[in-house]
Amino acid sequence: MSDDATAFVPGHITGFFSAHPDDDPAVAGSRGAGVTLSDGVTVTVEPADEPVVTLDGEAVEMPPVADVLSALGVTAAVRADSELPLGAGFGVSGAMALGTALAANAVFESGRSENELVTLAHEAEVRAGTGLGDVVAQARGGMPIRVDPGAPDHGRMDGIPARPHIEYVAFGGLSTADVLAGDTTTLTAAGETALDALLEEPTVGRFLSESRRFARDANLLTDRVEAAIDDVRDAGGDASMAMLGETVFAVGSGLSDAGYDPERCRIHPAGATLRSE
Amino acid sequence: MSDDATAFVPGHITGFFSAHPDDDPAVAGSRGAGVTLSDGVTVTVEPADEPVVTLDGEAVEMPPVADVLSALGVTAAVRADSELPLGAGFGVSGAMALGTALAANAVFESGRSENELVTLAHEAEVRAGTGLGDVVAQARGGMPIRVDPGAPDHGRMDGIPARPHIEYVAFGGLSTADVLAGDTTTLTAAGETALDALLEEPTVGRFLSESRRFARDANLLTDRVEAAIDDVRDAGGDASMAMLGETVFAVGSGLSDAGYDPERCRIHPAGATLRSE
Repeated sequence: MSDDATAFVPGHITGFFSAHPDDDPAVAGSRGAGVTLSDGVTVTVEPADEPVVTLDGEAVEMPPVADVLSALGVTAAVRADSELPLGAGFGVSGAMALGTALAANAVFESGRSENELVTLAHEAEVRAGTGLGDVVAQARGGMPIRVDPGAPDHGRMDGIPARPHIEYVAFGGLSTADVLAGDTTTLTAAGETALDALLEEPTVGRFLSESRRFARDANLLTDRVEAAIDDVRDAGGDASMAMLGETVFAVGSGLSDAGYDPERCRIHPAGATLRSE
Repeated sequence: MSDDATAFVPGHITGFFSAHPDDDPAVAGSRGAGVTLSDGVTVTVEPADEPVVTLDGEAVEMPPVADVLSALGVTAAVRADSELPLGAGFGVSGAMALGTALAANAVFESGRSENELVTLAHEAEVRAGTGLGDVVAQARGGMPIRVDPGAPDHGRMDGIPARPHIEYVAFGGLSTADVLAGDTTTLTAAGETALDALLEEPTVGRFLSESRRFARDANLLTDRVEAAIDDVRDAGGDASMAMLGETVFAVGSGLSDAGYDPERCRIHPAGATLRSE
């Protein structure tokens, strides 16, 4: 058993999705597509007598993290440092769950494979109702397409072979749990249509146009998100809304060109990974 | 159509494998495990009137690269710059095929997904007889376990969640094509045994011990490879042989500690990726 271990998990913005609930949390998940970000969450795990979870120095309740530790049968202190806001559509809770799984496995020598650790984190997110597809996307990196839903033994992933720069502005939060707990029939129909279209032409331009159509058809656009997307497009750029947060993301310098003051990052090529020894 | 595009593909050392030929090159492949390396191959593709392939500035015949270009229906100049020797068990031919697929898709806007591009490169390697499992491993990064053989629609991958430093010494080449063309019954039985053991305990230590057992049982050890592995172990380190090359790899400072002058690198976290725009 080592003293501590650290993992980095990229942020993940979903552009569109369909919800696929199931009694088995490894089978449940979402289909859809998104971008993983070089901005993300660094998670350090060390053995402790009492479980404690901090996010940017503040103690937090984070059920998916507690669930992962419980599944591994360990008691630990988990310290997360995030470059991204919580609850604004960046997959921070999924990142904390997955980072905890990777780092705790290293510290406690739990002997799980990467797929097993991704599965633990995915199941924990599904059970907590905080996400359906972030964890498998964050494990993969790049611009992930969730072709079939669920943990690695059940789902299937592909990707858009492109690495644009990304800009984003977060206006505020939306509750993933509230949206997922509501009627998702319209949302899921819009998500399935978008995925079919993207798989026909897996490019950045198609991803963004289908994401915009999804946000509109699923009635998730807020006024200020819609206004920012329009501003970017009026300036000749391409943007859409993060699912689920009041967040706009653009490729290249789309938000800067439209007069916003965005955060800038890259597509994360790797997916979640232990820090090199 | 852009002027050119560049992809980086990590090197890949297989520690053990079993061969699973099939008439369909997308179904054919290998099971096994290995390490992807931060040392790798950078591939740049640009449109050209006549196809030409160079490796480190020298024109080369590289059938898998020609096959990938042909499958995409394009004519291009392909320039590969490798940090790794050809034919010594580092997956350089697979890297060239996969890098060509990713970069050519970007240059010619061929509109393929990442899985489709990995499939083209995998099929090209299988048809050329130069490899069975490097391409899918190089697409994934990390310490890939090939649980089921074949291209993404057929195979299944997992990984060892560890990121040790790697050292390697290449004494010379072995012909992958010659070994694969021979009787692979003994080799495949040894590879299946090793994979079962690794899946029981997916750790770096188990990977290396099973790799050594495989090299011995499959009768692939040469004298100088065996001597170097023994030297590393006598110095308290852990090492095995690259499949297929007269190459020894060790974790941490294993070869340095034993008095060798190795190349040093890290596990590549990302897998093959287009260079960021």
